[in-house]
Amino acid sequence: MKYFDKILIANRGEIAIRVMRACRELGIDTVAIYSEADKNSLFVHYADEAFPVGPAPPSKSYLNMERIIAVAKTAGAEAIHPGYGFLAENAAFSGLCEEEGITFIGPKKKTIAAMGSKIRSKQTMKDAGVPVLPGTDGGIDDISKAAKIADEIGYPVIVKASAGGGGIGMQIVHDPSEIEQAIEGAMRIAESAFGDRTVFIEKYLQKPRHVEVQVFCDEHNNGVHMFERECSIQRRHQKLIEEAPCPVMTPELRERMTDSALKVADAADYVNAGTVEFLYDNGNYYFMEMNTRLQVEHTITELITGIDLVRQQIVVAAGDPLEYAQEDITIRGHAIECRINAEDPLNNFAADPGKIVRYRSPGGPGIRLDSGIHAGYTIPPHYDSMIAKLCAWGMNRDLAIARMRRAIYEYVILGVKTTLPLHHAIMHNPEFISGNTSTHFLQEEHISKTLKRYIQEDETRMTQLATPLRNDRKIAAISAGLIAVIEKNKQ
Amino acid sequence: MKYFDKILIANRGEIAIRVMRACRELGIDTVAIYSEADKNSLFVHYADEAFPVGPAPPSKSYLNMERIIAVAKTAGAEAIHPGYGFLAENAAFSGLCEEEGITFIGPKKKTIAAMGSKIRSKQTMKDAGVPVLPGTDGGIDDISKAAKIADEIGYPVIVKASAGGGGIGMQIVHDPSEIEQAIEGAMRIAESAFGDRTVFIEKYLQKPRHVEVQVFCDEHNNGVHMFERECSIQRRHQKLIEEAPCPVMTPELRERMTDSALKVADAADYVNAGTVEFLYDNGNYYFMEMNTRLQVEHTITELITGIDLVRQQIVVAAGDPLEYAQEDITIRGHAIECRINAEDPLNNFAADPGKIVRYRSPGGPGIRLDSGIHAGYTIPPHYDSMIAKLCAWGMNRDLAIARMRRAIYEYVILGVKTTLPLHHAIMHNPEFISGNTSTHFLQEEHISKTLKRYIQEDETRMTQLATPLRNDRKIAAISAGLIAVIEKNKQ
Repeated sequence: MKYFDKILIANRGEIAIRVMRACRELGIDTVAIYSEADKNSLFVHYADEAFPVGPAPPSKSYLNMERIIAVAKTAGAEAIHPGYGFLAENAAFSGLCEEEGITFIGPKKKTIAAMGSKIRSKQTMKDAGVPVLPGTDGGIDDISKAAKIADEIGYPVIVKASAGGGGIGMQIVHDPSEIEQAIEGAMRIAESAFGDRTVFIEKYLQKPRHVEVQVFCDEHNNGVHMFERECSIQRRHQKLIEEAPCPVMTPELRERMTDSALKVADAADYVNAGTVEFLYDNGNYYFMEMNTRLQVEHTITELITGIDLVRQQIVVAAGDPLEYAQEDITIRGHAIECRINAEDPLNNFAADPGKIVRYRSPGGPGIRLDSGIHAGYTIPPHYDSMIAKLCAWGMNRDLAIARMRRAIYEYVILGVKTTLPLHHAIMHNPEFISGNTSTHFLQEEHISKTLKRYIQEDETRMTQLATPLRNDRKIAAISAGLIAVIEKNKQ
Repeated sequence: MKYFDKILIANRGEIAIRVMRACRELGIDTVAIYSEADKNSLFVHYADEAFPVGPAPPSKSYLNMERIIAVAKTAGAEAIHPGYGFLAENAAFSGLCEEEGITFIGPKKKTIAAMGSKIRSKQTMKDAGVPVLPGTDGGIDDISKAAKIADEIGYPVIVKASAGGGGIGMQIVHDPSEIEQAIEGAMRIAESAFGDRTVFIEKYLQKPRHVEVQVFCDEHNNGVHMFERECSIQRRHQKLIEEAPCPVMTPELRERMTDSALKVADAADYVNAGTVEFLYDNGNYYFMEMNTRLQVEHTITELITGIDLVRQQIVVAAGDPLEYAQEDITIRGHAIECRINAEDPLNNFAADPGKIVRYRSPGGPGIRLDSGIHAGYTIPPHYDSMIAKLCAWGMNRDLAIARMRRAIYEYVILGVKTTLPLHHAIMHNPEFISGNTSTHFLQEEHISKTLKRYIQEDETRMTQLATPLRNDRKIAAISAGLIAVIEKNKQ
């Protein structure tokens, strides 16, 4: 069963390769699209066919819907997988595919549109009986009204752009005296970033965890969850480390949360893979938003359940039922993902694109690596700085952490600065080891204090491990001593 | 819990790294030993300390017991892990460690010695009620007596060196007229290879499978099995592909075989990891031998059970109980291992050592790679030609095969010839796909016929995938056509 003969992957880098891997395992031919900046990228070589779609800036290539559809038709691709980012949650693109008779591997246009608005989706979920954070019921553009609502919710509150994402336009307000200025600022940013000045206000949780539930629905009324992921370790609202299951989950809480997630999927009339994001604090959880796509961190769900999520996306998009019923989906062990970004953690995480001069992948038991890079590859400056996803699996959380530490030790990337040393630091951090994290984890002082030392140690180590002709003084000295001992024993 | 502070790994290549990975995850320091030929090998760099132990020939370095013990004492290693091969099943070395107060991570001297003799071990197992192949009860050095026994067993029979291994000195005899000459030949080879001309004779099975059971025992009377591995695909009695579980296993057969395996372990008074090898034919199975070490293919047992076998070896060697009881050990999915050897499959599998000029590891879901090689590494000519173990896991056998095919597609090794194209051919072979294999699989004509074509295809593919500036005519032509279409649509 092939489901499709040919699929176009409207994305780049590791996720393009991830999707092509699933296609290759299914015997489906793959079509890559690439910008001028990506013409020598691995994902272009990996595909069965590859087509240029424009210059480096995403708006001219990876977001160029018309051209991508034209490629799909020229190549004879029956379906398009959007990966994550770019067009993955673009309702117009999903609709365009539909019109052109091409299967969009993801939810329908109306689902994407409905979930794309934080305010609309929150109201839908509130009506469906899913817990949501106390806050404004709709968008606000009247400042004095907003201030009054903030008083009702109780401080601290958070002001968010309705059309926003990635933390843009978010403001935390601790005191009533700051509210008007904060709302004004958020509206101004929202206007310039998204062309929509509407904001909303929510209760701000002091030490929340980001816990999300993977859901999957087909066109045959099957809807399942694939348990939760803990994604609290973030930097500026960008996830950096994810794990599954959540270290503080209890059977009772899991039942409630996964139930709520399935209610969300049901209320959204959802089809294909989706993620329901919650904030969890002190025994309570609140619906944040639903992501209508494959997540970056789907890998850790795959590691604990054994299920190939991209394969299931293709199966469901072809109109077939899911290959697994709820009772077939079980957890074995624990998995952690570290996002490896080409950034300098000591320079405010500034992007550090450039040429990788030496590269060596980690391996062995329990390690999974998803990347699109290799020795000699030049990371272009135009895109997201994530270059690889390093995952570790173990029979329990401690073993997964031990393996992640070991894999970080093995992973050699020279030529660009990366977040590897930061991950090294976090994997040795007592708060992380005890599972006591929140979305504020990286702001806390204990991390930044130890970070610098770790990063310096890590660079020395990596250079040593990557040097093919290393000849430590230490080894030489010990060897000289040893030979003396042996000679003495012989006498 | 660290179990030991420092462990010496008396081996090289991928298995040295495999053991060091387990040590690193446990926080145990590692000591590498290396021959002159290995001084730039990855495993030497991976270790916390490294000591030269002599020139390239194994007898002067990796088998140099006195020197290895001296290194362990100088470095302060409390235990030695022998890996597989070299000193792993050397009773004298296990005994020497014991005398010197160093923990040998493996069974006791007397167990290794007892299981090292095929004749003795077979008799022990027969007495314990484990099925053995009809054959001579003891070693034979009288030719006419041997011929008479062969008549009683019934042809075909196989003649084996009692002290042998790896197929050395084995002879299959189909007709009574050939028996005397065959025995004479086997004795001559046994004499020269092992210094012991004793041979034994067994019934020869026409289409047997090699099925082995992983057992594990501690010093607290816990003995468990970790299910079976199917290792029928061999070349000259060297395994090439292994999978777990066995594709023709039934619950009833598994219960009988694992029961027998635990009886074998019990009869041998076994401690640590061991493997009980059986021949399986037509509903019957027969004890062949017990391997008193970690097997090359322990990886696939790790993939289906989730248990780290090397970690368990260390735990047990430290005198602690096994971390898993029988009821904790379950199978999820299916795993396959392909041994990647630096050999030329089109030139009678001649070893092909040399420099790896381009190297790229496979990755993504369900792939595990254990290797000790990298770009720029020169494979020395002095050792076993196995350079990597490529494993694929999937929720069922079909998915594991699909992933292995995909991983073979991704794996780039240029500069030396390897068995990768052979594995490519086998993963597409209908007999293999249907699970209909035997130890004679590689001798059968259908493989050799298709092999050559696959190998040629594979070299083209790998060169293309590895070329960073590939610019297919195909892509260029299609692109030109595409731009025309887009321009036309715009008008």
